[in-house]
Amino acid sequence: MADGSKARIAVLGASGYTGSELVRLLLRHPGAELVALTADRKAGQAMADVFPQFAPFSLPRLVTIEEVDFSGVDLVFCALPHATTQDVIKTVFDKAPKVKVVDLSADFRLHDPGMYEKWYGHPHAALDLQKEAAFGLVEIYRDAIRKARLVANPGCHTTTAILPVVPLLEAGAIDPDTIVIDSKTGMSGAGRSAKEAMLFSEVSEGIHAYSVGSHRHMGELDQEYSKAAGRPVAPVFVPHLVPMNRGIYATLYVRTAGAKPEDLHRLLADYYRGEPFVHVLPFGQVPQSRHVRGSNMVMMGVVADRVSGRAILVSTTDNLVKGASGQAVQNMNLVLGFPETMGLEQIALMP
Amino acid sequence: MADGSKARIAVLGASGYTGSELVRLLLRHPGAELVALTADRKAGQAMADVFPQFAPFSLPRLVTIEEVDFSGVDLVFCALPHATTQDVIKTVFDKAPKVKVVDLSADFRLHDPGMYEKWYGHPHAALDLQKEAAFGLVEIYRDAIRKARLVANPGCHTTTAILPVVPLLEAGAIDPDTIVIDSKTGMSGAGRSAKEAMLFSEVSEGIHAYSVGSHRHMGELDQEYSKAAGRPVAPVFVPHLVPMNRGIYATLYVRTAGAKPEDLHRLLADYYRGEPFVHVLPFGQVPQSRHVRGSNMVMMGVVADRVSGRAILVSTTDNLVKGASGQAVQNMNLVLGFPETMGLEQIALMP
Amino acid sequence: MADGSKARIAVLGASGYTGSELVRLLLRHPGAELVALTADRKAGQAMADVFPQFAPFSLPRLVTIEEVDFSGVDLVFCALPHATTQDVIKTVFDKAPKVKVVDLSADFRLHDPGMYEKWYGHPHAALDLQKEAAFGLVEIYRDAIRKARLVANPGCHTTTAILPVVPLLEAGAIDPDTIVIDSKTGMSGAGRSAKEAMLFSEVSEGIHAYSVGSHRHMGELDQEYSKAAGRPVAPVFVPHLVPMNRGIYATLYVRTAGAKPEDLHRLLADYYRGEPFVHVLPFGQVPQSRHVRGSNMVMMGVVADRVSGRAILVSTTDNLVKGASGQAVQNMNLVLGFPETMGLEQIALMP
Amino acid sequence: MADGSKARIAVLGASGYTGSELVRLLLRHPGAELVALTADRKAGQAMADVFPQFAPFSLPRLVTIEEVDFSGVDLVFCALPHATTQDVIKTVFDKAPKVKVVDLSADFRLHDPGMYEKWYGHPHAALDLQKEAAFGLVEIYRDAIRKARLVANPGCHTTTAILPVVPLLEAGAIDPDTIVIDSKTGMSGAGRSAKEAMLFSEVSEGIHAYSVGSHRHMGELDQEYSKAAGRPVAPVFVPHLVPMNRGIYATLYVRTAGAKPEDLHRLLADYYRGEPFVHVLPFGQVPQSRHVRGSNMVMMGVVADRVSGRAILVSTTDNLVKGASGQAVQNMNLVLGFPETMGLEQIALMP
Repeated sequence: MADGSKARIAVLGASGYTGSELVRLLLRHPGAELVALTADRKAGQAMADVFPQFAPFSLPRLVTIEEVDFSGVDLVFCALPHATTQDVIKTVFDKAPKVKVVDLSADFRLHDPGMYEKWYGHPHAALDLQKEAAFGLVEIYRDAIRKARLVANPGCHTTTAILPVVPLLEAGAIDPDTIVIDSKTGMSGAGRSAKEAMLFSEVSEGIHAYSVGSHRHMGELDQEYSKAAGRPVAPVFVPHLVPMNRGIYATLYVRTAGAKPEDLHRLLADYYRGEPFVHVLPFGQVPQSRHVRGSNMVMMGVVADRVSGRAILVSTTDNLVKGASGQAVQNMNLVLGFPETMGLEQIALMP
Repeated sequence: MADGSKARIAVLGASGYTGSELVRLLLRHPGAELVALTADRKAGQAMADVFPQFAPFSLPRLVTIEEVDFSGVDLVFCALPHATTQDVIKTVFDKAPKVKVVDLSADFRLHDPGMYEKWYGHPHAALDLQKEAAFGLVEIYRDAIRKARLVANPGCHTTTAILPVVPLLEAGAIDPDTIVIDSKTGMSGAGRSAKEAMLFSEVSEGIHAYSVGSHRHMGELDQEYSKAAGRPVAPVFVPHLVPMNRGIYATLYVRTAGAKPEDLHRLLADYYRGEPFVHVLPFGQVPQSRHVRGSNMVMMGVVADRVSGRAILVSTTDNLVKGASGQAVQNMNLVLGFPETMGLEQIALMP
Repeated sequence: MADGSKARIAVLGASGYTGSELVRLLLRHPGAELVALTADRKAGQAMADVFPQFAPFSLPRLVTIEEVDFSGVDLVFCALPHATTQDVIKTVFDKAPKVKVVDLSADFRLHDPGMYEKWYGHPHAALDLQKEAAFGLVEIYRDAIRKARLVANPGCHTTTAILPVVPLLEAGAIDPDTIVIDSKTGMSGAGRSAKEAMLFSEVSEGIHAYSVGSHRHMGELDQEYSKAAGRPVAPVFVPHLVPMNRGIYATLYVRTAGAKPEDLHRLLADYYRGEPFVHVLPFGQVPQSRHVRGSNMVMMGVVADRVSGRAILVSTTDNLVKGASGQAVQNMNLVLGFPETMGLEQIALMP
Repeated sequence: MADGSKARIAVLGASGYTGSELVRLLLRHPGAELVALTADRKAGQAMADVFPQFAPFSLPRLVTIEEVDFSGVDLVFCALPHATTQDVIKTVFDKAPKVKVVDLSADFRLHDPGMYEKWYGHPHAALDLQKEAAFGLVEIYRDAIRKARLVANPGCHTTTAILPVVPLLEAGAIDPDTIVIDSKTGMSGAGRSAKEAMLFSEVSEGIHAYSVGSHRHMGELDQEYSKAAGRPVAPVFVPHLVPMNRGIYATLYVRTAGAKPEDLHRLLADYYRGEPFVHVLPFGQVPQSRHVRGSNMVMMGVVADRVSGRAILVSTTDNLVKGASGQAVQNMNLVLGFPETMGLEQIALMP
């Protein structure tokens, strides 16, 4: 904070995986102090009861959202399920209009109320806030985020697929109509709800596609791709579940518009030069998801296909860090005036 | 066999994963008797020393290829590395011209010597045999295989990617120039050689693409797709390594040529009706790789994309069974006159 | 069956993992015909909706238990949760006194009503049946099982820990008071109920002990160890969850009573000579759980510790096969007069 | 450093997993500067070629040990294989007698030359140094380590098994003759050498014991247990390989000597009160290995067995952090006068 004191932080929804990842990062953030953690169904418990890895640390007990005094809070992370979030944030701002909010749900990512209604099947409940929200992809919207009161942290699939494509669409270097995104995610992206389909025995030792042709996060892709291209873009996007805890790995198939694959690589290298959390590999190399695991890094690569005019992009993030809570802290750093990398210096764990 | 006796079988290269899978299947095949197992570097050892799961069973000791008396053998499975294979099989036929051979390497899959040289970087050493070999994809070449002396068992990625596409190309239902194949494989497909890159700690808890833009098995895809389309086809193909033992999972992105996605589904359902080892799911459903694990089954599905004219095909096999040793036994059954499903009835293990 | 017809089989609780494993085995059993599958909450669905690996096969639809006509059934497998089972089986026998039952729950494994009440916290609801039930550990109680109407299939931890110890206690070769059993199980043993603690992200990439000092299956261990020793035995037993689908791996620490470790090995080798599903490794060798995965085999080994008088036994099974459904089919084979190994010939999958 | 400058650090053996883990930790250590990284067979390569997760960071190129100028180095981490280490460290001290060394191999852990020779099969090549070396288990030998020139960082199994037992033996609270240690380790503990037995397909989906009755690290256990007990102790110790990357999980079976299990718990809680890296759970609770993954924490628990006089201890660490490189940095912090927790604040990643 400007006055040198620590920022007072609340995490709403601390009992899920993005919530616990926020706590993990914020406990070691030199400028942040955790003053409230909420978890409706687990209110009253200690955080260590819910996530024993926190047993050695001192943390506020879990409470309900109603119990939080937002007047004493500088910034709220909202890691709640879709739809309930809009009401909660509206209420938070009603109680404390000057608080900052970084929202990890999908509720404020789509600027167009019509698009929101199309993808989510109901009208948005906080249209003013929807208009106000900054899209929290720092490398693209850094300036807007700095001034924002409400930041909509983008999804993990979308963060990973937007970053390598936007510079190419902006430059007119690829055909907007033939983009294919084959995305693979680790299991922690599916959350901590007890569902049969997420049991170890259901998802280990195999892979499968899900939400084929209909995944809601395509709305975010369309929005950002279209904005970059200056005209409507609707890529093919298919997510897959992979038996690993963390990681998003997007393989993107593109057709160049005149440009050569080397040109695509140069465009990306130029665009992200100096970015602390984006690393563009040498032309012809692709990353592995494990090379960013546990870190806030995006790694990407460009490879020429054997047929001229076709190229393959690969982009990878840790879905809980750059794909969720790490990016949220990066947004917090901008919003509160901390150095952008503060508390996010962790290097990937491999193995 | 026609006379009711058991077929005498040799497995060359029994110390690798496709070799051990052949032994697993053939030990329970009512018409087969294992009379020779070879493993050059492990000759002299018992099979149970190399694969302890066989300890309870009686099996021939491992010997070198030179020690095998091929005159007493009805059929040879060749599970040796690429390139050495051509010389070995030439020698086998020199010694025993009437023996049948099912080859699991890539050596005899490409009919065009020029294509072989292009993908493998050296001229083929057994051109006559290359001409003679049947491509061992039973569902497409059943009749030719029945009459063949030498069957070239197709690769795991290619088996999985050819079966859902050939009927559509033959029918002119999809655009041959925009096919994208994003294929994912389990680790057993990488074989049993001690390589740093295949250590548990290198490949668990992550995913990555490999041989991007340059995988050799594209030669097989080109050959079969082109034949089906009646003109040259060169799809985009990117394989990925997934932290699981078994499974190939191919997500195929196609553009329809006039047809609707439902038409693609109907074409596949018709083409494979009655096939014992191909199961086409209802329109709109996709399989999971674990639903075929341990079985000789291919499962496939067709889904419409949200944009008209685009469809997503998913196809999955167990890389060691239908993608290698199971299909090899299926080929043996045809070549030796056994019922096609004999010894291949195992149902997928899930979990 | 004696008259050559197929045995008509019902599986109660077909939507769990032991249920689906029974279906997998019985679909390929030459003497069995599946005539009824029940699943209370999923009644009305096709088995393929619940377990897509069965999509290629023809199976009865799932029904409630009330809908089953037991008069047309020869044998019932009961794969239901503890406690409900006793009432269900009582009702089944009331309706069809001549039907045979193989029960996979813990309800009929303890012969002593007092012990049942101690471990399960309530009186047994079917005392007569409890008295009548045979303990379904074939290698020890083969003759009793042949004559039984009701067989209590033992648990997976207990099957794995009883087989290597009973012969040693019977021979007086080890000290009954210092047996330590450190048992490790794969996740499928925890069943298919949607529980947070069984999510992939909760149990992959780690290991932990559970029910330390209080696991209910110790009742079975005590019963069988005490019977073998001829006096009360209460071993230490701690189960652990390992991030794998299948497998029980018990490491047993014993002190010899005069005997040498080699003597323990000889006792086991003699005891299990000729058993189709028990393999005793050479002295000094231990098995790996993957060497029995997917098979009905038990593998065990004996190693001398560095200090005289101490030995280590290792025993391993596939918890869903020899530890549950495979052993249940083995019991069915005895009860119905089929060859004991029928339908259980599958060899372990490795990898 | 006392003068406020950064300590100049060399890592010998940077291409293995403990080496890369040292680099990961030291890159973020405020007091350390990496000035030399060695890897004999990979000399000349960039660290990012060997471990791509370091691509975004600036690091010295890999060189041979001979190329390092030790006169400009304050502390050397030695992460080399057993046996070669003694010669290397002797040479390092010859060249630069004032440098400090933290050795991660087993070479200097045993104080008794006879014991070394017994376990390793050959005489020690640097007897003076062996005598001088401090045993680097900080919580027990903190004062000696502070003054040491050479610290022998203990093994991962031993760190995990020594910490919960030494306080109990010192207090005479448990029987030294009946300790059983069933230890489980993740795969990264087996190192990065390309060995068939460590391939993903060999070690995933299963568990197995190894070095049963003969693991060399028993020498360290004997030494430390005997010292604590004041008389010779030789526990039973069996290590197991578990399909996970990181983690040591030791289940220890003890018999109390008069004491109650609650007393054991109180002894441990008292002994480790205030320790930053040891967390004793409430009586009756046990940790999971994933609750310390990626952190320098040891978590331990004590549970009473159902039979009086028997107790179960569970202790867990991350084998690459507290079990190797994290503890090595903790030792460096003591030796160089940094705060003990500096650079080791990372909280466990779960999931």
